[in-house]
Amino acid sequence: MSKTLPYYAVIFTSERTEGDQGYDEMAEHMFSLASQQPGFIGVESAREKIGITVSYWKTLEDIARWKAQVDHQAAQRQGKQIWYSHYTVRICKVEREYSFNLK
Amino acid sequence: MSKTLPYYAVIFTSERTEGDQGYDEMAEHMFSLASQQPGFIGVESAREKIGITVSYWKTLEDIARWKAQVDHQAAQRQGKQIWYSHYTVRICKVEREYSFNLK
Repeated sequence: MSKTLPYYAVIFTSERTEGDQGYDEMAEHMFSLASQQPGFIGVESAREKIGITVSYWKTLEDIARWKAQVDHQAAQRQGKQIWYSHYTVRICKVEREYSFNLK
Repeated sequence: MSKTLPYYAVIFTSERTEGDQGYDEMAEHMFSLASQQPGFIGVESAREKIGITVSYWKTLEDIARWKAQVDHQAAQRQGKQIWYSHYTVRICKVEREYSFNLK
């Protein structure tokens, strides 16, 4: 991920309903779609008891455009109907970052 | 989590080295310690290929104080020596949030 500060992060935390019900396929499709959006920087994801997906974007406008994207809108509706029992979306400005890499 | 906007999020993404080597015990201890710090709002965590831990804080000063806490400093040193092959820390201002709950 190459980026200049500040940029933006969308923290999506969720709890799933039972069963796959097309979830993995949708998630893969959304990842592929998001990657093609203007301003997309990257995405990181992990799930245990809860799922946390953090996507990174250049501007708030890029995030708004992705939220309004037609296929993503459909996935959001199905998310409420089928896949999630709970989720929270947080829109954040990344103000500082640092990394460590083992030699 | 009860909080007023804006508040702050620390996104900690990491890749682990092999084996536990005291990691789980440390992680539990750090969770317990963080919970007692001033300004602590909450923490969420999941690990698959990578680990994502997001902790939430009232102010940047609370985050700086937690970073400097003595036992946490020791854990950070051991993190580089033993537990992590890579990590990134991002300090973020949470500007907006919304939630969904299945009825």
